[in-house]
Amino acid sequence: MSDRIKKVAVLTSGGDSPGMNAAIRSVVRTCAYHEVECIGIHQGYQGMIDDEFTPLDARSVKGIINKGGTFLKSARSKEFRTKEGREKAHNNLLKHGIDALVVIGGDGSFTGALVFNQEFGFPVMGIPGTIDNDIFGTTHTLGFDTALNTVVDAIDKIRDTASSHNRLFFVEVMGRDVGHIALNCGIAGGAEEILIPEEDLGLDRLVESLNKSRKSGKSSSIVVVAEGDKIGKNIFELKDYVDQNMEGYDVRVSVLGHMQRGGAPSCFDRVLASRMGVKAVESLLEGETNYMVGLLNSKMELTPLEMAIKGKTKINLELLRVSDIMST
Amino acid sequence: MSDRIKKVAVLTSGGDSPGMNAAIRSVVRTCAYHEVECIGIHQGYQGMIDDEFTPLDARSVKGIINKGGTFLKSARSKEFRTKEGREKAHNNLLKHGIDALVVIGGDGSFTGALVFNQEFGFPVMGIPGTIDNDIFGTTHTLGFDTALNTVVDAIDKIRDTASSHNRLFFVEVMGRDVGHIALNCGIAGGAEEILIPEEDLGLDRLVESLNKSRKSGKSSSIVVVAEGDKIGKNIFELKDYVDQNMEGYDVRVSVLGHMQRGGAPSCFDRVLASRMGVKAVESLLEGETNYMVGLLNSKMELTPLEMAIKGKTKINLELLRVSDIMST
Amino acid sequence: MSDRIKKVAVLTSGGDSPGMNAAIRSVVRTCAYHEVECIGIHQGYQGMIDDEFTPLDARSVKGIINKGGTFLKSARSKEFRTKEGREKAHNNLLKHGIDALVVIGGDGSFTGALVFNQEFGFPVMGIPGTIDNDIFGTTHTLGFDTALNTVVDAIDKIRDTASSHNRLFFVEVMGRDVGHIALNCGIAGGAEEILIPEEDLGLDRLVESLNKSRKSGKSSSIVVVAEGDKIGKNIFELKDYVDQNMEGYDVRVSVLGHMQRGGAPSCFDRVLASRMGVKAVESLLEGETNYMVGLLNSKMELTPLEMAIKGKTKINLELLRVSDIMST
Amino acid sequence: MSDRIKKVAVLTSGGDSPGMNAAIRSVVRTCAYHEVECIGIHQGYQGMIDDEFTPLDARSVKGIINKGGTFLKSARSKEFRTKEGREKAHNNLLKHGIDALVVIGGDGSFTGALVFNQEFGFPVMGIPGTIDNDIFGTTHTLGFDTALNTVVDAIDKIRDTASSHNRLFFVEVMGRDVGHIALNCGIAGGAEEILIPEEDLGLDRLVESLNKSRKSGKSSSIVVVAEGDKIGKNIFELKDYVDQNMEGYDVRVSVLGHMQRGGAPSCFDRVLASRMGVKAVESLLEGETNYMVGLLNSKMELTPLEMAIKGKTKINLELLRVSDIMST
Repeated sequence: MSDRIKKVAVLTSGGDSPGMNAAIRSVVRTCAYHEVECIGIHQGYQGMIDDEFTPLDARSVKGIINKGGTFLKSARSKEFRTKEGREKAHNNLLKHGIDALVVIGGDGSFTGALVFNQEFGFPVMGIPGTIDNDIFGTTHTLGFDTALNTVVDAIDKIRDTASSHNRLFFVEVMGRDVGHIALNCGIAGGAEEILIPEEDLGLDRLVESLNKSRKSGKSSSIVVVAEGDKIGKNIFELKDYVDQNMEGYDVRVSVLGHMQRGGAPSCFDRVLASRMGVKAVESLLEGETNYMVGLLNSKMELTPLEMAIKGKTKINLELLRVSDIMST
Repeated sequence: MSDRIKKVAVLTSGGDSPGMNAAIRSVVRTCAYHEVECIGIHQGYQGMIDDEFTPLDARSVKGIINKGGTFLKSARSKEFRTKEGREKAHNNLLKHGIDALVVIGGDGSFTGALVFNQEFGFPVMGIPGTIDNDIFGTTHTLGFDTALNTVVDAIDKIRDTASSHNRLFFVEVMGRDVGHIALNCGIAGGAEEILIPEEDLGLDRLVESLNKSRKSGKSSSIVVVAEGDKIGKNIFELKDYVDQNMEGYDVRVSVLGHMQRGGAPSCFDRVLASRMGVKAVESLLEGETNYMVGLLNSKMELTPLEMAIKGKTKINLELLRVSDIMST
Repeated sequence: MSDRIKKVAVLTSGGDSPGMNAAIRSVVRTCAYHEVECIGIHQGYQGMIDDEFTPLDARSVKGIINKGGTFLKSARSKEFRTKEGREKAHNNLLKHGIDALVVIGGDGSFTGALVFNQEFGFPVMGIPGTIDNDIFGTTHTLGFDTALNTVVDAIDKIRDTASSHNRLFFVEVMGRDVGHIALNCGIAGGAEEILIPEEDLGLDRLVESLNKSRKSGKSSSIVVVAEGDKIGKNIFELKDYVDQNMEGYDVRVSVLGHMQRGGAPSCFDRVLASRMGVKAVESLLEGETNYMVGLLNSKMELTPLEMAIKGKTKINLELLRVSDIMST
Repeated sequence: MSDRIKKVAVLTSGGDSPGMNAAIRSVVRTCAYHEVECIGIHQGYQGMIDDEFTPLDARSVKGIINKGGTFLKSARSKEFRTKEGREKAHNNLLKHGIDALVVIGGDGSFTGALVFNQEFGFPVMGIPGTIDNDIFGTTHTLGFDTALNTVVDAIDKIRDTASSHNRLFFVEVMGRDVGHIALNCGIAGGAEEILIPEEDLGLDRLVESLNKSRKSGKSSSIVVVAEGDKIGKNIFELKDYVDQNMEGYDVRVSVLGHMQRGGAPSCFDRVLASRMGVKAVESLLEGETNYMVGLLNSKMELTPLEMAIKGKTKINLELLRVSDIMST
């Protein structure tokens, strides 16, 4: 272990996700284990600029492993996008004697970390926290698994009422650029169709497919739609189109919204957060910088932040096929 | 017990609610207990017209007490609003030798039952099933308690992300004419304000109250809004108004939608459903008709359908006051 | 409102239950609303003796309405059973200028409060917090509803595996002296038999009933047993007896244990806690003492502590009958 | 695709696990997709002997993806361990014109399948269904992820009451030979110690560790114990030892039991089940036999049944280390 790193700071940035608290806890306890001091920065990069620093010891993160959100809070910071803002932030880190920084967030947050390192040579390490699972270099981002269960639980409830009334529901889930939540939850929720940004099914084929499923004896249906789906301008227009071009269905829309971001993290996300926190701190202590920790082939691995930001995660084509077969 | 009633039919009608399956199960098993035949009618009154009748015995309702929705399905029937439709329905009941009918549903369904009884003298008994709790003659309708827990769970999740980002959320819950869900879930969800159809707070007072709570140190807030709230035309206009008239909050909207109608019924709703089914069947066997069973002062009581339909449930003023004190 | 009461203390005592935190929050906020100071006492009566007092304001109870357990902690105190211990406790209350005390707990805790009042004339008010629902003067104690849902959820899971393997499960639930949890959860969980302390079914009749249900076509069964059931010495002996006296069943035991005490409180318990806290504080401010607040006929009512302690809650005979009919 | 396979049978065998229904559904729908007939066999291998066969089409597995347990039921069969029993079973398969068999179960079930193939040359394919995650050739068995969430939810509840009372809880979870559930849930539940069959910590070191954690300021503790842990004869003896050798803790035991086997499968398990069903059927159609489908490096892979049975899954040493660091 390096002797250079005596004090590590941690912050959460960008959209929150379940497991962020568990990751903070892990960073703090790994520091304590290695007898390194740990400082929590509130409000993400903005708090770094505004000097919102709090020392954290092993006991101060007690009882948070199962809490959604982030007790350090998160914020987007315009000021950190300026050179001046980042200089203030850097000065604060120096003032507090901090030697390295763990950033828990998504690709925007990692871009900030990378720029910060390039300007000041400050050691940084990223932990991928977002429900969207859209970060290259990890098969699972923190919060993804929890969000899947939240969405599937909601779809189960919607199906209860859909099948009692022979209704067709369009259910919108998060995912502006990627369809991971939609695809997994569509399969798990028994959806007839899944609309994702990566694939444009086309309105005609959608109606055709729903008609076919109707004729095969299905009296109710769920279509899971990712926010960023390209088929219609939005889910309400989609509903209108289907209303006008299909008979026999009472069509409804449900937008699941922000509840997808909250809730007690699943076991998977808690374990993942604990592993990632250990790996992040120990990598810094070993002198590494500019990496993101991730889960690859069941192991903790480092991916250069640059690749994590630029790389694209791809939809699993096998899942698309499974979804197709399941809606037989 | 009357000897007249040898065969009882049961149907679910109107919007579905958790606990309907448990109530059907109870009707069926109470019939079995008294050695009376039981027939399930699919698709509500429409199925009565279309002759969708199925014999149900004690074993055929196995494993449904914990399932949301209604396996008999529900539907609205225009045809049943015509004399002709009701005559068809009556003929089908006679054809199957049915002596009495249990209707599980809301006030619209009870109106249908009452008209049906008045025209044909056919014994009918109502069980109040709706999540809205808007039926006179019972402190709790079937599904209300389950919906409360579903909504509160969603608000808890939304609060995780709200407090991580210092956001203000407007959360829309069901309740077109009554604020029972909004009021209870607002209190239980720790909402700063609760907007219900029964009370028009006014936009200015809302903003004033939110500003006050902001100044008192609250960095995030939840406002629970019943669908039928009169303060704005809809929840998105409400958001826009607050966006324009308050500073320092990032305002978001979440419409919980149809997931509120589904899910495994709570213990309370399962027990209530079981009690109501027993009371409904045994009241018919005792020769009663045109009543709704309900929970009053912890006991099963009968209320004339006419009163159940016309009576108004009132918001509990004590709860309004508690909500006010809790958001101190 | 009385001018005498300027400072109110609150403590939790005895076994914890979900909703205690929500009740503390309500006591604190009601004090704030009436501009009365509020002090939290840690560790129940023992903390009153040991001077573990913390001032609580409206913001210090933020984010606890949905947390199980009690953040003030609870403890049993032998010292408080002595005159000397109670004198220490009283001196501490005087030292901190406290004028009245809210005790959240069960009948043991209320006995302590009553003795304390009788000795020192100190105003006390009780809030019934226990999952057992065994307190006279309220139809629901705090935590009862949450525990019911926890137990029913566990029974649903056990039934999944019971019915996959044609097994008979004895499920032990809490309730040493009363069968409220067993009776409600037995009905809601679809149990074949429910064994409660209030009723001794007898081993022979149990086996007879299970055999009958077996013959009627049920391939798996759940028997819910309250801890305090009198039929056998304990649930494992019960299993052995049935194993030896019945054929064709693979018999298993599940003791649900302490998880029944925890978890996020249900909507019902949160609203009840909020109401009880308001009523308790305002009753003290109105000069009342030696009462317990309770829910009776949907309203907040006061019951003398003496009656709350001595009175017996009775099992609802209607529920026993419903349970009998449901297992047809 | 092979033309040889026109009819596929599916059964569940051994202990049930959440996701088995989803896997059956997937097998059935994949058959339908490829226009191959599908037959469900009830009661595992015993039903194969007793000729309990039912044709299943795409619609007959509707609404089961979210149900725990297995609707085909499972059973252990002594008769199938005899040559005679297996011959009966084989004759039944021939009588129904079945060409291949999918077995959903654990290693005992796979041993049966392998013997069956060796004797009769009958094509078989395994899907690993068990909550224990003790099968070689897949990182996750069906039901493991769901069980983890069930256990963690229970531990969260127990922690509520543990921390309210400053108690030490020993929580026993499933895992007779392997500590996967204990290790993951121990980390996710914030346990101070985790006792697993793979590692014998020793009683003295356990007490030493608990004393150390006590002194570091932890007032309550959870120790997660796998059934098969070697440290004590059983969890109650463990409690007694700690009771006698530690001061200041009120020690309790909770045995989670069979509820760990039930419940609606998690999103992860539903997706996994869907993928495994597709892979199993399509592998048979491609002429493969004597394999188990599994998840390896995020992909569906085949492992020879022989290896799946004989291979040992190992505990992840990284997780042991993470657990150690987290309890700092």
